[in-house]
Amino acid sequence: MLAAPVNPADLNQIQGVYPLEAAGPTRVGGNEGVGVVVATSGESLLKAGDWVVPRRGAFGTWREQVVCLDDDVQVVSQNLPLSAAATFIVNPPTAYRLLHDFAQLQKGDVIVQNGANSAVGRYTIQMAKKMGIKTVNIIRDRPHYEALEKELYELGATMVVKSTEFSKQETQDYITRVVGGQPILGFNCIGGIATTEMSRFLSEGSTLVTYGGMAGKNPVISTSSLIFRDIRYAGFWMSRWYQQANSNREKDAERGKMFTEITEMFASGDLKPPNVKQFDFKQNWKEAIEMYTNPDSQARSSDAKPLLIINK
Amino acid sequence: MLAAPVNPADLNQIQGVYPLEAAGPTRVGGNEGVGVVVATSGESLLKAGDWVVPRRGAFGTWREQVVCLDDDVQVVSQNLPLSAAATFIVNPPTAYRLLHDFAQLQKGDVIVQNGANSAVGRYTIQMAKKMGIKTVNIIRDRPHYEALEKELYELGATMVVKSTEFSKQETQDYITRVVGGQPILGFNCIGGIATTEMSRFLSEGSTLVTYGGMAGKNPVISTSSLIFRDIRYAGFWMSRWYQQANSNREKDAERGKMFTEITEMFASGDLKPPNVKQFDFKQNWKEAIEMYTNPDSQARSSDAKPLLIINK
Repeated sequence: MLAAPVNPADLNQIQGVYPLEAAGPTRVGGNEGVGVVVATSGESLLKAGDWVVPRRGAFGTWREQVVCLDDDVQVVSQNLPLSAAATFIVNPPTAYRLLHDFAQLQKGDVIVQNGANSAVGRYTIQMAKKMGIKTVNIIRDRPHYEALEKELYELGATMVVKSTEFSKQETQDYITRVVGGQPILGFNCIGGIATTEMSRFLSEGSTLVTYGGMAGKNPVISTSSLIFRDIRYAGFWMSRWYQQANSNREKDAERGKMFTEITEMFASGDLKPPNVKQFDFKQNWKEAIEMYTNPDSQARSSDAKPLLIINK
Repeated sequence: MLAAPVNPADLNQIQGVYPLEAAGPTRVGGNEGVGVVVATSGESLLKAGDWVVPRRGAFGTWREQVVCLDDDVQVVSQNLPLSAAATFIVNPPTAYRLLHDFAQLQKGDVIVQNGANSAVGRYTIQMAKKMGIKTVNIIRDRPHYEALEKELYELGATMVVKSTEFSKQETQDYITRVVGGQPILGFNCIGGIATTEMSRFLSEGSTLVTYGGMAGKNPVISTSSLIFRDIRYAGFWMSRWYQQANSNREKDAERGKMFTEITEMFASGDLKPPNVKQFDFKQNWKEAIEMYTNPDSQARSSDAKPLLIINK
């Protein structure tokens, strides 16, 4: 492996509170990462020097060497920035699938998302912009709110709004007027009451997709939104999608198409590589993990994702 | 009109707490009912003597005479029992759409529903039986539970279970073994925690449709059921379906097919007419309404629906 990030879900997996077991009998952690092919057997279609990323979750990326099958990995372009290659298979594909699998979006359509400053949220903004889709982006109030707001506008956000403002009906009415319509699709990674606030904003017959639960509280879904407003609630989990792609030819082809498109978007600059903080795998792995586990960690308040540099 | 029932939703509509206004400038109540054609204009395809039911909600059925367009009504067979004709357009079509619009059910598939003794629940049991679909039916514990349980088995229920029992994991495991599989579709008219209990029982990728909220509490939907188990949550409202059918040719044709099939099921005895208590429209209308509004009403504890006999 060349590099691999540390994600909260990786830690949950090791703690045994994630519904996917870490890889192999030694339970190697790490779901994402990028490696370079060192050697192949006669039958392999891979070549030494190829950059590869896992094609499924629970690959076990926190290690120097991996022996695996051709089918376990996907070649990616070496034009990708290392940080983008190492974090290629979860966040950009999640944003891609959210935008493609739950509604037939047309140019000019509106979507809404909360936790819009998350990695998935930022990719969603950038991909939606390229598709001509307008995005309403909800973020929490915080120190340096204006700087974050500016950053999201620079990525292509149509509108950025504080969650405290968004909860007001008049704000939602104002956004609808300015943006020119109600969203037909919403992405929720917060849960709790934030779900209700988003469902009120969606147009009748819309779909609200939950892909995270950062508030630690179940989505609050009203009976009337289901019955009288026909709001549909679905969930999305990238790992399940990959599991399905491994046994479904159509989805497998779709995965190749998606990987190509995402690579092209990074190459063209339509997607910005993620904000990472690098750690040496052998020397500083503990600090990388502490970014999430140690409440006193200074790095914790940073938006950057810890990235383990494994082989240089 | 010949006869019209009183439903809780009719009263909610008059109270102004239902998202559909009562008909016309005089706000006549009543959404269901059966009438007989007295006279027609030259252009009409209806004939004097035809039995007709409304093709949409908010028709205003609590009146002796109605002037309306051909398109407002649908001819039904005079072979229908009066009680079935008067309650034709809401409950049987709701059960029919729940069974047809949310999953491609095959013979031998399993569904689960709560509030299974409701009018919709009973029709669902009978229609599912005819389709070869197995039903798991949850009802609350109550005095004379055994009599109700027996009644539902006689209608064709595959399994009837008390809600207090169903909340236990071992009961759900037992049912799955006996019935021979987990359900791929669930119908919820209760809300609150009952929703969670049903979602645990559904197989991965299933749909849970909410068409009522008898508990008066929002459905409790877990983040993990959405993300990790891919349970989809949808709502159903018969009035919206009719609104759509009025402007959509395909759905309009589908409505005709459904009305014919339901009529045939009543004629063949596959559907039992509902349990009603008759009231004379002019003399005893107040008593009929009191079945829902007066907590001391003796009739309230009855399973029978009040039916106003308007013209004999």
